[in-house]
Amino acid sequence: MSDFTLGRLNHVGIATPSIERSIALYRDVLGATHIGEPFDLPAQGVKVCFIDTPNTQIELIEPYDDSSPIAGFLRKNPAGGQHHVCFEVPEIHAAVAALKAKGVTILGEPRIGAHGTPIVFIHPKDMGGVLVEVMETPAEAHG
Amino acid sequence: MSDFTLGRLNHVGIATPSIERSIALYRDVLGATHIGEPFDLPAQGVKVCFIDTPNTQIELIEPYDDSSPIAGFLRKNPAGGQHHVCFEVPEIHAAVAALKAKGVTILGEPRIGAHGTPIVFIHPKDMGGVLVEVMETPAEAHG
Repeated sequence: MSDFTLGRLNHVGIATPSIERSIALYRDVLGATHIGEPFDLPAQGVKVCFIDTPNTQIELIEPYDDSSPIAGFLRKNPAGGQHHVCFEVPEIHAAVAALKAKGVTILGEPRIGAHGTPIVFIHPKDMGGVLVEVMETPAEAHG
Repeated sequence: MSDFTLGRLNHVGIATPSIERSIALYRDVLGATHIGEPFDLPAQGVKVCFIDTPNTQIELIEPYDDSSPIAGFLRKNPAGGQHHVCFEVPEIHAAVAALKAKGVTILGEPRIGAHGTPIVFIHPKDMGGVLVEVMETPAEAHG
């Protein structure tokens, strides 16, 4: 049994060598109409951009620093690709404690993510090869 | 300009060597409570299982046929991983015509997908390395 229930899929994280080109794809090919302004997350060495769908978001992620984990992902996947999925939890420290109690490997300590609330990542080895971000639900949650 | 606007993210498709083990992860680690019965999609040589989040779904996909495209994905990613994202469109033939008019490569002809409505896939080379499924909105849409 889990100590929290599966929350909203806040976003799907997609790595790209060029946020500008990816924005053009989501806008011109798929018809995205709600595209945020790209902004830097210096702690992670990446630039991010959120694109709204009616029920969730796509997070485009472009590294500007070769030491970024995203840079490593792009060396293996030069065209870009799906990088992670992010689920919301009510409170990050309770979620981390519950996950650790289940023997799940948490990557690092809770830190402030792109939505301004604390996040952690679960090691893909514990989630069937999928990198899972766990995010405290933003106060001004949409949808 | 697109001829349709970006629709709901119907699901994230996740390939797994074992739907049974993946169901246990989403249930026991992440607290999923709405887990469908796995079922076969013989045309694709896969078994699938939908897990509900409050706003979208996770589609677990396990190949039972070595010729399945999912089997090839798992040879490269033995632990499993994120395989595709699926966006809804109002009408599949109009969407395919609009996508082809933009020079996008569509993989095959519209066929009936796991939700019983027609779907196609866009080649990842045209979507920044991401395999994108386009699905006609199911009649009994949730959320």
